[in-house]
Amino acid sequence: MLTEKFDAVDVIRHKRDKLELTGEEIDWMIDAYTRGVVGEEQMAAMAMAIFLNGMNRSEIARWTQAMINSGERMDFSSLTRNTADKHSTGGVGDKITLPLAPLVAAFDVAVPQLSGRGLGHTGGTLDKMESIPGWRANLSNQEILDILDGPGCVICAAGSGLAPADKKLYALRDITSTVDTIPLISSSIMSKKIAEGTDSLVLDVKVGSGAFMKDIDQARKLAQTMVALGTDHGVKTTALLTDMSTPLGLTVGNALEVRESIEVLEGGGPADIVELTVALAREMLTAAGKPDADVEEALKDGRAMDRWRQMIIAQGGDPDAELPVAKDQHQVIAERDGYLTRLDAISVGVASWRLGAGRARAGEDVQAVAGIELHAKPGDMVKKGQPLMTLHTATPERFERALQSLEGGYDIEDEAPAPRASVVLDRITAE
Amino acid sequence: MLTEKFDAVDVIRHKRDKLELTGEEIDWMIDAYTRGVVGEEQMAAMAMAIFLNGMNRSEIARWTQAMINSGERMDFSSLTRNTADKHSTGGVGDKITLPLAPLVAAFDVAVPQLSGRGLGHTGGTLDKMESIPGWRANLSNQEILDILDGPGCVICAAGSGLAPADKKLYALRDITSTVDTIPLISSSIMSKKIAEGTDSLVLDVKVGSGAFMKDIDQARKLAQTMVALGTDHGVKTTALLTDMSTPLGLTVGNALEVRESIEVLEGGGPADIVELTVALAREMLTAAGKPDADVEEALKDGRAMDRWRQMIIAQGGDPDAELPVAKDQHQVIAERDGYLTRLDAISVGVASWRLGAGRARAGEDVQAVAGIELHAKPGDMVKKGQPLMTLHTATPERFERALQSLEGGYDIEDEAPAPRASVVLDRITAE
Repeated sequence: MLTEKFDAVDVIRHKRDKLELTGEEIDWMIDAYTRGVVGEEQMAAMAMAIFLNGMNRSEIARWTQAMINSGERMDFSSLTRNTADKHSTGGVGDKITLPLAPLVAAFDVAVPQLSGRGLGHTGGTLDKMESIPGWRANLSNQEILDILDGPGCVICAAGSGLAPADKKLYALRDITSTVDTIPLISSSIMSKKIAEGTDSLVLDVKVGSGAFMKDIDQARKLAQTMVALGTDHGVKTTALLTDMSTPLGLTVGNALEVRESIEVLEGGGPADIVELTVALAREMLTAAGKPDADVEEALKDGRAMDRWRQMIIAQGGDPDAELPVAKDQHQVIAERDGYLTRLDAISVGVASWRLGAGRARAGEDVQAVAGIELHAKPGDMVKKGQPLMTLHTATPERFERALQSLEGGYDIEDEAPAPRASVVLDRITAE
Repeated sequence: MLTEKFDAVDVIRHKRDKLELTGEEIDWMIDAYTRGVVGEEQMAAMAMAIFLNGMNRSEIARWTQAMINSGERMDFSSLTRNTADKHSTGGVGDKITLPLAPLVAAFDVAVPQLSGRGLGHTGGTLDKMESIPGWRANLSNQEILDILDGPGCVICAAGSGLAPADKKLYALRDITSTVDTIPLISSSIMSKKIAEGTDSLVLDVKVGSGAFMKDIDQARKLAQTMVALGTDHGVKTTALLTDMSTPLGLTVGNALEVRESIEVLEGGGPADIVELTVALAREMLTAAGKPDADVEEALKDGRAMDRWRQMIIAQGGDPDAELPVAKDQHQVIAERDGYLTRLDAISVGVASWRLGAGRARAGEDVQAVAGIELHAKPGDMVKKGQPLMTLHTATPERFERALQSLEGGYDIEDEAPAPRASVVLDRITAE
């Protein structure tokens, strides 16, 4: 019989009683959980104790390291290009990865975007990409390296070998109300990102109704924690705090968001999407040693679009294929004249999810065509009777519940609201 | 598909966020846990949230009621005698149930002692009784009623149908460090006791190193919570707070404790055992409408012993059989002259457990013969070279670890300690 170094009951009790966990306790807890020696019920009690009693910076760093150690690490050292990675904490209409990855790749920086599928109201990047006919999310490590050496950017599924402890823990947190706490969010994100082996990382930390973090102070604290974790592990890490009170761009949903991303790569697209894409690209290129890259020009002159097309083709997709469109559409009409003063991200996100763009449980299918087109954004003047948004779905019985989610989700008033200064609210760097 | 009234994730989140749970949420949570719809990991997170955020009196009452409702209830209404029950929170050398049940029965009050087996350093009443040759712990409901109508007292295993939610939850708390918190201790004890259907109940709440509750304020709060729960459910409930800083009586271990109990039923026995047995008997008899019963006399004149013998025979045992004795014994010798000023309950309890009197995991066998005889108690004068205690076991390789547990577990000093006023520290009644 294998003798274990610790007993889970003792380690849980220490965190329960607000003691600082030792590095050895953390290492053992994560390793034993990965091996199945610490049971799900024990880790659930631990997660709740962490949620309520917190972890200090050194505990979070060790917890993150232990989750990295639970699996394999990617190795991009054979590439001649520097690598730069981006992670968003998730929002409504957040398709930024799609134009961003080829834009940065256009300057010969390698962009490995190992992504996930959506759960709940925030869409998943892989779900969006899969609305492109023929496109494949699952690649071998060799395929990933080959694409990074060629087109220079790749958007694909993260292998199951990276941070397997995090994979188990994430699923557990989801069913035990232990998701939204800084120690567990930051260690989950950073363990995966560090295991992916990038040289630099920019974090897009969302703030507002459509995000994990509803207020800017919490978001700043999360960003600071993650920047410190990345920096401590030798990854050049910065973060932008960005507004998620209202959806990004004018589309929410899988194929709809791909279409809008292509507009941006054609030199057009909504101003907020372009602003955030350019801001994140500058962060990534600066970290990769190219602070003077003319990012806007690469969107306008087709260099970013070239990389996008090469990447799609390399992953089996057809960049010229028609994207699918929903047969059933329903318009939401302005009931009065005035200014759209508020359009709530979470209301639109849930409505899109209910139309079929997202899933309630891991493993469910999503509709490529489902989602919402916005015809007005906060600050826009609207006329009574004009369409505010168009709902798309392949299953029209879903309209009713989607419309319920939009009730109270927007305001039309006489006075124009103060204009939003910028999507980017703050920038966080190491110390 | 059955539609559930709530989602465990929401109910856990409410307790996590320090909200008061509604009665409907509690009812559903316990029922769904019993049915397996709420998973062990979810209840573990809930238990930790309760441990850290607490429950108020009405939440504890509803939680208790929901656990009662999870199973069947005993019905003693067909008996002509009143019923009186006793519960101890568990201590070292606590054999009080053995003389107490026949003593109270001697006054024609029915005493159903549905008991458990020991786990860890506190012994189980059934483990003690099973050292009597032939004696059976498992009885049908009809057998229990027949014995209560005849001898008037019964000590037997609690049926698995009583409060099954508590049975699941107790096993879960044991492995998730969520045992020692008043809401979960009190609802666990009282759900079983109320489901047993007694008219009255006296609680023996232990305080000190050998008990759950290490200090008297916590013990008082636990007692008050349980007395209120019993009272609210129509059970006449009182509690005694009693000292568990040192073992009760002069024996710890299964057959050893039966022998000492028989001494008490013969009119002898150690003073602390007699004191506590008499005090608890008075509580039970007062609740059963017989406040003037001459309890001490019934120990001296053999009436209690008669009931004991009848009960043993009714459960297949031989009251005249020799109790087993350990072949291997080891004496601990006083290393100096002086007064024994301290003899720590937990040290002796763990030593006895390591000798084989208790089990580390549910389902393991225990030794009838293992345990410790004490030759001195705190306050006694001792001479260098005299035996302080005798260790008993059937497996002599266990002596070493038992002796380790006794290291530092007692003090011999020049000055006599202040005498202990009483085993009973306080009495708690409804309001």
